[in-house]
Amino acid sequence: MLQRPPAEPGMGEDEIDTPALVLDLDAFEANLAAMARSLEASAVALRPHAKTHKSPVIAHRQMAHGAVGQCVQKVSEAEILAWGGVTDILVTNEIVGAPKLARLAALARIARIGVCADHVDQIAALEKAASEAGVTLNVYVEIDVGAARCGVVSPDEAVDLAQRIADSRALVFAGLQAYHGSAQHLRAVGERRAAIGSAVATARRTMEALDRAGLPCPAVTGAGTGTFEIERDSGIYTELQAGSYCFMDADYGRNLDADGNPVSLFRPALFVLGTVMSVTRAGRAVIDVGHKGVGIDSGLPVLWDRPDIAYVGASDEHGQLAFAPSHNGALRLGEKIRLVPGHCDPTVDRYDWYVGVRSGRVECLWPIAARGAMA
Amino acid sequence: MLQRPPAEPGMGEDEIDTPALVLDLDAFEANLAAMARSLEASAVALRPHAKTHKSPVIAHRQMAHGAVGQCVQKVSEAEILAWGGVTDILVTNEIVGAPKLARLAALARIARIGVCADHVDQIAALEKAASEAGVTLNVYVEIDVGAARCGVVSPDEAVDLAQRIADSRALVFAGLQAYHGSAQHLRAVGERRAAIGSAVATARRTMEALDRAGLPCPAVTGAGTGTFEIERDSGIYTELQAGSYCFMDADYGRNLDADGNPVSLFRPALFVLGTVMSVTRAGRAVIDVGHKGVGIDSGLPVLWDRPDIAYVGASDEHGQLAFAPSHNGALRLGEKIRLVPGHCDPTVDRYDWYVGVRSGRVECLWPIAARGAMA
Repeated sequence: MLQRPPAEPGMGEDEIDTPALVLDLDAFEANLAAMARSLEASAVALRPHAKTHKSPVIAHRQMAHGAVGQCVQKVSEAEILAWGGVTDILVTNEIVGAPKLARLAALARIARIGVCADHVDQIAALEKAASEAGVTLNVYVEIDVGAARCGVVSPDEAVDLAQRIADSRALVFAGLQAYHGSAQHLRAVGERRAAIGSAVATARRTMEALDRAGLPCPAVTGAGTGTFEIERDSGIYTELQAGSYCFMDADYGRNLDADGNPVSLFRPALFVLGTVMSVTRAGRAVIDVGHKGVGIDSGLPVLWDRPDIAYVGASDEHGQLAFAPSHNGALRLGEKIRLVPGHCDPTVDRYDWYVGVRSGRVECLWPIAARGAMA
Repeated sequence: MLQRPPAEPGMGEDEIDTPALVLDLDAFEANLAAMARSLEASAVALRPHAKTHKSPVIAHRQMAHGAVGQCVQKVSEAEILAWGGVTDILVTNEIVGAPKLARLAALARIARIGVCADHVDQIAALEKAASEAGVTLNVYVEIDVGAARCGVVSPDEAVDLAQRIADSRALVFAGLQAYHGSAQHLRAVGERRAAIGSAVATARRTMEALDRAGLPCPAVTGAGTGTFEIERDSGIYTELQAGSYCFMDADYGRNLDADGNPVSLFRPALFVLGTVMSVTRAGRAVIDVGHKGVGIDSGLPVLWDRPDIAYVGASDEHGQLAFAPSHNGALRLGEKIRLVPGHCDPTVDRYDWYVGVRSGRVECLWPIAARGAMA
């Protein structure tokens, strides 16, 4: 069931019911502008990943700042964006199963649809779905550039798949998907450069093999918030898939720049607002946000602007806060606390509403329309 | 947005769209019957915890097997159950904030509502909400019996709060909440007995202090699936809050009995069904279920009935499966795989539908009506 909105426009932040997902609109807009500035001298396009935000509202804001379209991981996410007016969508993932493929092909009537493949059987199924729907699908061959997840592992396999796609009347060979997910959170910039350097070399070898086979490669798509400047300057990538940049999170906040300082191009814009609900022990308090309310796969959340207090443990519906016992009056029952999620993507997926806040007041409610869209 | 049902009654299990939450109805019903049998010689009542299942349908099935009502953690969960016809609900948690308390008090017109408190300010706020709504709320004093989370830490504090409740015309002192969450997953039965033995001693000391103060204690409520037999036989507890017993999960499956074997009273009934979506590397496959689709806070999921294959890594939308490279033909693209979640509660909270399956066919779709009910 859709949950009721935790606030209404005009309320003060202190009046928001909790747990709630709060979007600092000034910080969010500054992040969109910072990304646009970082790409303005480059020919490389931005195609932000909607697996982060799951919202047509935010997709359109990103496109107003120059993004060429959106990425998604799932057909159900593509549906929500296409139905919300986004007309250029890339599914950065393999899609398996005839019912899902029929739904994907149906979207190609109202949007340009791209999708990845790393197996000849997927291509045959895509061809069948596109033919039956009377549409064209743009197919990208996914290559494994170091993440060891999906993607073919040799240039020869990529060429075979690209040829199979190019031979189909219902499909277009649209390029290569070359995303290195595990490189995004390498802390030192040198490690990230080495990992993406290797990804670029793999993509280049694959492009050379395609060229020898007489198959032009129109695009190379990949990159995330942790490495997008490296792919931007690679001379190979044509589109960047960064998603988290618009929100940031505690995990990305631990990436370091060349001077060993936390990367500061983007700032935290997304928070889980919680309420102190129990204060029975010295040096401890309990907040009403556990791991049902904040993703802990990439570490626990951290308190915003309260370095004196740590979130030290999450159960389903409770979070444990710890501080110096001498500090005891610091947290009162009912006090509202902003948490910076460890990982923004799965945290967003737990909520139905963004509560947009500016200068301490609620400005807007935006539905997280693709919340739970996993299929 | 509510996600579309991933199946319809009559389909084969292989036709279910994935990821989907599959409930093995035979196993589920066997678990309900096993719990009823384990309590039939006892005067202790069962009040199962709906934070596990989040569904009025399942609540009513549990009550048809003798449960006296339901537990919840959140007011929004209580609303869903009360609106679904459950007339006896205990919020096993402190509720802070006037808007939430007004919603809770409103429910007392259609259900018996219990709620916990561990601070005098909470009691004043409960009294105000109940008075303004013209209802009576049943208030339980939560005592910390070892979990070090919520709950007062001394019998004297419990007596003070109980007296404050008993003095209120809008509130009834209903007893003690004495739940030891962290004891539930101690692996050895001796460890669980020691932890609950200590909880029982704390509850008994508190009851004696209440008795000296002339405050009768009508109930002691607590226990979970890992320890409920110990509380059942304690002579102190009057109600058991076990929730996971109806589904089980991989984490509870690691608890051991007195002989050192996995506890076997209940069997796995809840599964996440996934599809193999990429098979590019020897000894590896990728499934379409990552940690957005299965809770990993208590460990990764395990494959059902496939001991030769391990789920070894979860990213947001992908799960990595590993097996002996010689086994390579074992997983084919498009194959559907049942996963046993590491932790059932947060996994359920990621889905909108239970797909009830019996003998390989879909028998029913049940909405997870309180999915995302965190406020």
